[in-house]
Amino acid sequence: MEFSMIPLDKGSSFSKYVADILKIVDESGLDYRLNPMGTVVEGEWDALLTLLTRCFRSLEKESDRISLQVKFDCRKGVSGALESKIQSVKKKAGHSIKV
Amino acid sequence: MEFSMIPLDKGSSFSKYVADILKIVDESGLDYRLNPMGTVVEGEWDALLTLLTRCFRSLEKESDRISLQVKFDCRKGVSGALESKIQSVKKKAGHSIKV
Amino acid sequence: MEFSMIPLDKGSSFSKYVADILKIVDESGLDYRLNPMGTVVEGEWDALLTLLTRCFRSLEKESDRISLQVKFDCRKGVSGALESKIQSVKKKAGHSIKV
Amino acid sequence: MEFSMIPLDKGSSFSKYVADILKIVDESGLDYRLNPMGTVVEGEWDALLTLLTRCFRSLEKESDRISLQVKFDCRKGVSGALESKIQSVKKKAGHSIKV
Repeated sequence: MEFSMIPLDKGSSFSKYVADILKIVDESGLDYRLNPMGTVVEGEWDALLTLLTRCFRSLEKESDRISLQVKFDCRKGVSGALESKIQSVKKKAGHSIKV
Repeated sequence: MEFSMIPLDKGSSFSKYVADILKIVDESGLDYRLNPMGTVVEGEWDALLTLLTRCFRSLEKESDRISLQVKFDCRKGVSGALESKIQSVKKKAGHSIKV
Repeated sequence: MEFSMIPLDKGSSFSKYVADILKIVDESGLDYRLNPMGTVVEGEWDALLTLLTRCFRSLEKESDRISLQVKFDCRKGVSGALESKIQSVKKKAGHSIKV
Repeated sequence: MEFSMIPLDKGSSFSKYVADILKIVDESGLDYRLNPMGTVVEGEWDALLTLLTRCFRSLEKESDRISLQVKFDCRKGVSGALESKIQSVKKKAGHSIKV
């Protein structure tokens, strides 16, 4: 899944909040990648929802209005996809592509 | 929250799957609205995640690859917002607006 | 398409901004529906991008940081889908469903 | 912006289509990063919409139904944010974080 969770009542600088959430993601032990627009995490359904809940419970202590966007790409029997999806595209797109 | 859950391995006609999921939403007892691009549901965090899990468990019986997009607008102490958000915009936008 | 455009530097009350954008959508002459989480608009690609640009140019006069989320469901040769998508799901889900 | 554009009528293997789109992104000269769930691109509003249009026109030659999701984080006077956003979070989250 990829998710982005920010407070809407704390001004427009979000890096402190993203950092706090990222620590929770890191402690989960799940494989993840931060990108400029969100955090991609790989795991089973229940583990991902537990992680989202932990992040939400942490942020709601500080904020009264939270925006959360999540995209799931749920595939049976697939793991290690954080790397394999990138490599599969890179191979087809050619060597000049920056990924 | 607003969510859209579709199978990616069952062709490009999704209304049957959306209908099955909508029945699960309806049975939850939560307040909801279907729109052309997704379903908006109001409820507490745990109830919403339980609902998403129920929809996911149902659809994964039929599909090996599921796309799920969810947006949450989490506000403390707010309920009845499915109507009040629309009315608030309508009032400010003026009577000629179709909502 | 469905879109949601809000300023991130103007506090957490967005109905004024949504109302201003909705007026621009209404003036476009395109078919649309407001829902509690966004606005769904039907039209050709170029018309939709022109509309988004008009909304963005209007809001950037007031805000230095804008969040915009857009989902497109682009189908060749399809029109009137704002109603037909709902009806198709409603028919399959049964009469008891609220849509 | 971050975007993800896939055909919905071509089965559930998308890497070929993502690769074709990535070549168009690469040729645009804009700064970008591919991640497992989408592609993040930095640029001015008009350049980004021109790029999306180019990708859409290319993919619609092959597909009758296209799903496109786009998130914009529009900030006045900001550039080089693909790196700076990551670094800002990394600095606040501490050295142990993988980013």
